[in-house]
Amino acid sequence: MSKKQVKSFDVIVIGAGPAGYSSAIRCAQLGLKTACIDNWHDEEGQSSLGGTYLNAGCVASIALLESAKIYQSINHNLKEHGIQAEAVSVDIALMMQRKNNIIDALSRQIADSFAHYKIDCIQAEAKLLNERRVEITPTDHSAVSIIEAKHIVLATGSSPVDLSCAPIDNEFIIDTAMALNLDAVPKRLAIIGAGIIGLELAGIWNRLGAETILLEAQESFLGLADQQIAREAYRIYTEQGLELRLGARVISAKKGSKKVTVEYQDSEGTHALRVDKLIVASGRKPNTENLAAAEANLLLDENGYVHVDENCRTTLPGVYAIGDLTLLGPMIAHKGIEEGLFVAEQIAGLHNPVNYDLLPSVVFTDPEIAWVGQTEQALRAMGEPIKIGTFPLKATARAQAMGQTEGMVKIIAHAETDALLGIHIIGTQASEMIAEAVLAMEFSASSEDLARTIHAHPTLAKALHGAALTLKNKK
Amino acid sequence: MSKKQVKSFDVIVIGAGPAGYSSAIRCAQLGLKTACIDNWHDEEGQSSLGGTYLNAGCVASIALLESAKIYQSINHNLKEHGIQAEAVSVDIALMMQRKNNIIDALSRQIADSFAHYKIDCIQAEAKLLNERRVEITPTDHSAVSIIEAKHIVLATGSSPVDLSCAPIDNEFIIDTAMALNLDAVPKRLAIIGAGIIGLELAGIWNRLGAETILLEAQESFLGLADQQIAREAYRIYTEQGLELRLGARVISAKKGSKKVTVEYQDSEGTHALRVDKLIVASGRKPNTENLAAAEANLLLDENGYVHVDENCRTTLPGVYAIGDLTLLGPMIAHKGIEEGLFVAEQIAGLHNPVNYDLLPSVVFTDPEIAWVGQTEQALRAMGEPIKIGTFPLKATARAQAMGQTEGMVKIIAHAETDALLGIHIIGTQASEMIAEAVLAMEFSASSEDLARTIHAHPTLAKALHGAALTLKNKK
Repeated sequence: MSKKQVKSFDVIVIGAGPAGYSSAIRCAQLGLKTACIDNWHDEEGQSSLGGTYLNAGCVASIALLESAKIYQSINHNLKEHGIQAEAVSVDIALMMQRKNNIIDALSRQIADSFAHYKIDCIQAEAKLLNERRVEITPTDHSAVSIIEAKHIVLATGSSPVDLSCAPIDNEFIIDTAMALNLDAVPKRLAIIGAGIIGLELAGIWNRLGAETILLEAQESFLGLADQQIAREAYRIYTEQGLELRLGARVISAKKGSKKVTVEYQDSEGTHALRVDKLIVASGRKPNTENLAAAEANLLLDENGYVHVDENCRTTLPGVYAIGDLTLLGPMIAHKGIEEGLFVAEQIAGLHNPVNYDLLPSVVFTDPEIAWVGQTEQALRAMGEPIKIGTFPLKATARAQAMGQTEGMVKIIAHAETDALLGIHIIGTQASEMIAEAVLAMEFSASSEDLARTIHAHPTLAKALHGAALTLKNKK
Repeated sequence: MSKKQVKSFDVIVIGAGPAGYSSAIRCAQLGLKTACIDNWHDEEGQSSLGGTYLNAGCVASIALLESAKIYQSINHNLKEHGIQAEAVSVDIALMMQRKNNIIDALSRQIADSFAHYKIDCIQAEAKLLNERRVEITPTDHSAVSIIEAKHIVLATGSSPVDLSCAPIDNEFIIDTAMALNLDAVPKRLAIIGAGIIGLELAGIWNRLGAETILLEAQESFLGLADQQIAREAYRIYTEQGLELRLGARVISAKKGSKKVTVEYQDSEGTHALRVDKLIVASGRKPNTENLAAAEANLLLDENGYVHVDENCRTTLPGVYAIGDLTLLGPMIAHKGIEEGLFVAEQIAGLHNPVNYDLLPSVVFTDPEIAWVGQTEQALRAMGEPIKIGTFPLKATARAQAMGQTEGMVKIIAHAETDALLGIHIIGTQASEMIAEAVLAMEFSASSEDLARTIHAHPTLAKALHGAALTLKNKK
């Protein structure tokens, strides 16, 4: 291949998940000639931009949860509303179809944006070579070629960690992607891992009728969350019917003809569990295995994460890594999106860094959990003088009217300066309420600032206001 | 009655709606000896604190809307979720019972707070006399007495305006309180007034199956809202099945044996409409008719509003008026609440005034409408240099997953300084999303501040973020 045949860009983005697609679009908006290479495709080989997040992750999960909530509500909550319905049934294939339609529509939106901003969208496997060149192997098996760019953004995301004790067959022992594509409700379901993804999946299938058991190796529950909120979550999930077994280490999972037998160990000994499906949801690893050729000399750490500085720059000049590929922050879509925008603007000569301290975390269960800033346990460990204001959702008229009264808002402020240090929410729409909390902390607000801001009545946001007023009234 | 028999307080609050109860509670929290007089009672004569807002207004309305939305969703949206149900029916009496239970629970919360803070709660009619004395006529017809206080807070709220052309009989021609207490779904329903209350009621009964026609005397629709949002609302409501007739002035409403005939005039002439029920929702007036004895010399304006200065002080020393009684701001619960707190703190020697410029407005229909700050039409009329960023909800993954894709966020910023001047939202949960917008404007944020704040993904709040990014990307 002669030099002049090599197609050249200002920026090549590898991966069209949230990090990659936002970076590519922002690059193009800023006038850079941009290509984006992505290999995700559906069963018919059709490209489906959006990465795991859209195709087999959070969006699929919240779409199914929406359906599952409706199904559960019809089965259990209609009577109090004075509504009767009979012969309630569910067709999982149709429910999946709705979810797939949503994914398709959102994926098309990304493709439309790419077209609008004249981004070269290449459906292929990509491998980073040296000298900012990328080898592309088209998904349709047409000829391998090489393209080059002044800047390369790596955004290939992550995939589920395999467990040798529970090998995926995607029939009985399934991964988290397949868990969003089942064609029937398992009668009895076990999930390895009670982290965010495990809990989200559990909430869907349990609502649809599956007896659901989560096996979590850790003794603590939702260790990264504020532990008062985590205890509340544990109580609520358990009351909803999830069976949460902590300190439960899976030893083996064996397929029978129609069931899986899971063996696990806890402080009381060894137990066996027979279930219809087993979901392995024990974390994710960065997709770096085939990301770069040896000649590229891309520096990875021992766990396969791309080594980057605080500006998402790899050790190779002009090559950046964003999203789940790095350890700069947690594996969440909006971290990737922000890094995507940051890197695009960096390439264009701007500097709008990501404030990693104020990345909100969200668990998309029902009720939701969301937080920003520090937890009480972390602040106490640091010896910070703190004060805490809490407010239960059930004390708000809105939650009562909605019949969604579980949960609370917890505000942690500095005992002397009153500066907000952490805001933790469990409750319906916590993911939406956290937006105000993040903004408050971006402005270095005090709890009194929140208390003095008028909140519409009746809203759930009044619980955030209420927690702030609690702190004010303690004076 | 001898002077020494007169019971004396630091503060007497007249009325236990949102303005009154928050003021009374805050007074007591601040160590003031407080009495609160309220005359609201149910059919059995039991006190029910919370005023119109709780007993016959917004809370009742959102509780019923919740039920109505579920009923409608079962009738129309189940199929796409893969859920089947048969023989769907509704029992309005049970639906009302749920609403009443919610009201009772919230009213008890207020009573519990009163007890907790040792507030003297008096169930009576109250009349302001001179020298900060109040005559109380107990609802149970026990002896009339007089109490006195260093400070008196008037918070008697408002009631529906009567129309002489459509006299309320609460059987065929009903007021807004009765419209939240019907025992069956009218087949055909007309509502005089397509303001906030009329629209909220229309959304409930239309979802429950009533053919619903709104007659609005004004030619414009939702004149106080941003007109781009109002046009969007008009389109959505109409597509949902509401019949909105603007410029329609009602001339007469006559009861037949089973129907009401409404005669109205518009630009095309005179029309007659036969309906099963007619709701009169043509505004509210302050409850000042029997508020004060002549000897008190309380100054009212020509429309019956209590004359107050910017600190809610009436012309009588030590006497304050808050909430719907004054023209300091619109008749909304959170205005009253804020004034209640403000006056309580003022009495205790603190000064935390209400920022009337940043009172959010909310229409609790579905989708909701919420805004804060100024409208595009007002800013254009003032000749302000502005720039506008909009973002459709349907472009967010959250709205798609929820199947709630109608609506948009509109941000208006100063063309030169980028300061936020107005934020207008129509869409599901607009009332919650507006909280972040109010806080942003409290901090005099620019649209770039919003754009640079990380928003969790996938959330509806991303639409607000998206509108801010639109403005940023225009640079």
